[in-house]
Amino acid sequence: MTSIYDTDLTPNVVNHSPMTPVDFIERTASVYPDYTAVIHGEIRRTWAQTLKRCRQIASALQNRGIGRGDTVAVMLPNIPEMLECHYAIPMTGAVLNTLNIRLDAEALAYMLDHAEAAVVLVDREFTTVVREALKIATVKPLLVDVNDPEYGEGQAICGLDYTALLAEGDPDFSWVSPADEWDAISLNYTSGTTGKPKGVVYHHRGAFLNAMGNQAIWSMGQHPIYLWTLPMFHCNGWCFPWTITAMAGTHVCLRRVDPEKILHLIREHGVTHMCGAPIVLNALLNVPERVRPKIEHAVKAMTAGAAPPAKVIGDIEQMGIHITHVYGLTEVYGPVTVCAWKSEWDELDLNHRAALKARQGVRYPTLAGMMIADPETMEPVPKDGETVGEICLRGNTVMKGYLKNPQATQEAFRGGWYHTGDLAVWHSDGYMEIKDRLKDIIISGGENISTIEIEGALYKHPAVLEAAVVARPDDKWGETPCAFITLKPEAGEVSENDIMDFCRQELARFKVPKTVVFQELPKTSTGKVQKFVLRETARSL
Amino acid sequence: MTSIYDTDLTPNVVNHSPMTPVDFIERTASVYPDYTAVIHGEIRRTWAQTLKRCRQIASALQNRGIGRGDTVAVMLPNIPEMLECHYAIPMTGAVLNTLNIRLDAEALAYMLDHAEAAVVLVDREFTTVVREALKIATVKPLLVDVNDPEYGEGQAICGLDYTALLAEGDPDFSWVSPADEWDAISLNYTSGTTGKPKGVVYHHRGAFLNAMGNQAIWSMGQHPIYLWTLPMFHCNGWCFPWTITAMAGTHVCLRRVDPEKILHLIREHGVTHMCGAPIVLNALLNVPERVRPKIEHAVKAMTAGAAPPAKVIGDIEQMGIHITHVYGLTEVYGPVTVCAWKSEWDELDLNHRAALKARQGVRYPTLAGMMIADPETMEPVPKDGETVGEICLRGNTVMKGYLKNPQATQEAFRGGWYHTGDLAVWHSDGYMEIKDRLKDIIISGGENISTIEIEGALYKHPAVLEAAVVARPDDKWGETPCAFITLKPEAGEVSENDIMDFCRQELARFKVPKTVVFQELPKTSTGKVQKFVLRETARSL
Repeated sequence: MTSIYDTDLTPNVVNHSPMTPVDFIERTASVYPDYTAVIHGEIRRTWAQTLKRCRQIASALQNRGIGRGDTVAVMLPNIPEMLECHYAIPMTGAVLNTLNIRLDAEALAYMLDHAEAAVVLVDREFTTVVREALKIATVKPLLVDVNDPEYGEGQAICGLDYTALLAEGDPDFSWVSPADEWDAISLNYTSGTTGKPKGVVYHHRGAFLNAMGNQAIWSMGQHPIYLWTLPMFHCNGWCFPWTITAMAGTHVCLRRVDPEKILHLIREHGVTHMCGAPIVLNALLNVPERVRPKIEHAVKAMTAGAAPPAKVIGDIEQMGIHITHVYGLTEVYGPVTVCAWKSEWDELDLNHRAALKARQGVRYPTLAGMMIADPETMEPVPKDGETVGEICLRGNTVMKGYLKNPQATQEAFRGGWYHTGDLAVWHSDGYMEIKDRLKDIIISGGENISTIEIEGALYKHPAVLEAAVVARPDDKWGETPCAFITLKPEAGEVSENDIMDFCRQELARFKVPKTVVFQELPKTSTGKVQKFVLRETARSL
Repeated sequence: MTSIYDTDLTPNVVNHSPMTPVDFIERTASVYPDYTAVIHGEIRRTWAQTLKRCRQIASALQNRGIGRGDTVAVMLPNIPEMLECHYAIPMTGAVLNTLNIRLDAEALAYMLDHAEAAVVLVDREFTTVVREALKIATVKPLLVDVNDPEYGEGQAICGLDYTALLAEGDPDFSWVSPADEWDAISLNYTSGTTGKPKGVVYHHRGAFLNAMGNQAIWSMGQHPIYLWTLPMFHCNGWCFPWTITAMAGTHVCLRRVDPEKILHLIREHGVTHMCGAPIVLNALLNVPERVRPKIEHAVKAMTAGAAPPAKVIGDIEQMGIHITHVYGLTEVYGPVTVCAWKSEWDELDLNHRAALKARQGVRYPTLAGMMIADPETMEPVPKDGETVGEICLRGNTVMKGYLKNPQATQEAFRGGWYHTGDLAVWHSDGYMEIKDRLKDIIISGGENISTIEIEGALYKHPAVLEAAVVARPDDKWGETPCAFITLKPEAGEVSENDIMDFCRQELARFKVPKTVVFQELPKTSTGKVQKFVLRETARSL
């Protein structure tokens, strides 16, 4: 039924504009042109300089034919160029595909082909693996060499350097907002648990909203100094390339996680915020006291995944780092729930505080809905802290879907909710807590590893009859892959090292099982491997 | 041209939900049910209690037939019921029309009819004026009496009390998000400058975004304690009923601006944030030292309109109140530009700081565009700090338009921008500064007063030949109406007081000229009154 409010009050160019996080850099560079945008080794760039560089790259790419709906892939660590790509590429209307720099050539080749990559920007550390990937892949993208002075070695993948590309571009290039905020802004491949990687597509609307959600739930304020301990290739760095820019902060870049260097950077630049897997926090604690720079200001760290144990939380907070625990997945732009802290909890003893903080919490204000439900009936579980259900999410910061995979999208969205595949309980205060994973994904050092992929590699070994991989708890990595293998009767002498050596040829290094156990596999009556039994065994090793 | 990203990736119930600020109270009441939502006199209510009351009112209104597109008007000061209406009314799909409590019966009658008000909620302080308005008006809305214990006098407008209405409602009522975020959420009448008030329509999308913008630019953080010195009937309290709720803060209510009481409340409740016209800040300074409660914590005040003079800024900041200067209008949900402060300015002397702070600044990150332009050619003026142009705005926090007035909407939106009618210069650093008003509106105590309306009243006086009204600068009110009158030759003895007495019968009290000058009116060769000359005269009185 129409009302008086439906007449002559339609959207138009004055009162409706597509939301996009790309706009954040325009505003910040205009208001704070001389403020430091980027710190990287000896490099210091202002917001005016950074915006100019983004415009130049965007202009150069456009001149070379890149536009709406094209995929521009990047194989870059957390360097200034990676930040610039979060603006320059969407400025052209193209989609930023951030490749996991730890992947092997085969996985990369699959992604480049699947995404129909038109351009690939490659840091020299990854020239070799990308070259190999391109030998396998069908696509013939334009290549761009990125020569980071902080690396200072390696070969260029091609003759076209990032700075040369930049020089081709117009520093006054005026980009145009996407016509529709629903347009894709980025593509992030998730290893998932079953077979081929899936391409998660983000849009401008969701990226804008999650960027705003981040600062709201973290009480961030203007001008944060943010240290890039979280890879930007993970869910676009949880949208922080956009959040920090919106808040006119400073991005302190970091090629690789080096605990001692992190502490030095925190101290030197007065870092106020950083993100990362618990393993990063753990690593800071393991820096020997005698070389450990003392932190004399307040630092906030956001962490996700397996919650750190009480001792780690206590020790980290004693260092002056305050932890905020969030939860999310690639499919939801990074974090979308937070263990929203209550000041009255400050009075509790450490173990109690750690137990509260270990919970994955409540939804961001920018996410419409979170529930723990029976994944079949979609009935929410009681808030009793005991009944296990699947974490289901919905709202504007859920992905557009999986690229070229409508079946997987439908499966993930069945029943009107995004199914995370994570199992949790719902506490009486509305906070949720993860209890287990519905699927068998292993999270090692913040990386998702598909057990099925490892099993696939193991099965290639001529002596392997059956193989099953589960997560084994690990102090350093959180979890590592643990392989249970039954050898063929005719197999001769095979050692654990033989298996690992074999896997190294088949898999990225971080996916190689750290433990190999030879035994009969426990099975259900219908012949299905009982992974929960193996998980128990792995835990007790 | 479609790309791979346009295929099988359409919006659906999982990944697209209409943005609405109503959702903020759901989240906050769920996460912080026991935190204090509202303080008013002796009243303390938690978020759980407040949400329950909103649900009950929404349910009761729905049971009485109120739904999408209906107008629910309220004549309420800053009391808890007014806050509740910002949630309860949109929960039903209806539109909240906040009436300016200082208006006279005739203006109110016009608005009630124009908005086709289905319900009016009336605080007992305004029973008489609303009764009079309803005698004039055609509509026959359902009336609801609001009996605030902090007022404690006056008559009920009808037999149906707010608490009785509340008791009719279901505390578990589950409201439904608007199907479209473009749906109207509220209606705010602006006096405008020409003739009849115009009904500015806000939508859920814009209200959500401006609420988020407020906290981002103010570095607000979680759990602000917010004092309601700004009327909620002004642009929905600049969207702060939604911002403070989103941030799980506390609303400290206040029926009327009482400087001494304000200082007591700030001290007693640890108020962290408040908004208001400069006159409010000025009033705080005028509280005699001996009765002035000392503020011992940091307070942030957001102010708009004519910037306070240097001395006021200096004195206020010495009291411990940090001022943020913003700019906006009813048509843009309240503030949309901010004099974004730079820490390096802290070093400057007071006069220099005040001059910088007096500027209206730069756009919010939630507003797409601001420019100072020639209103005819739409060419931006140079950023020279001298060339005057009109402030033009565009983006998601510009109104849907004027209700039932497509011509005024088109006029305001001509050339693809919202024309504010305010004249400003653009400084080289991108900050804008208002120099004059394109129209002749008077801002007195934060209220817009149309000079044309006053002139219309003056012309009704039998002895008046010609009349022109301009703003006269005033230490207390910012500006007051100053009337210049030429009497008819045959007119007998007419005093300034006679004119003012006459106006009191015709106009709301605050619109009555505070100064009356009898003189010949200066005119252009074409016979148009030269208001700029009169403004000079008024200034020198």
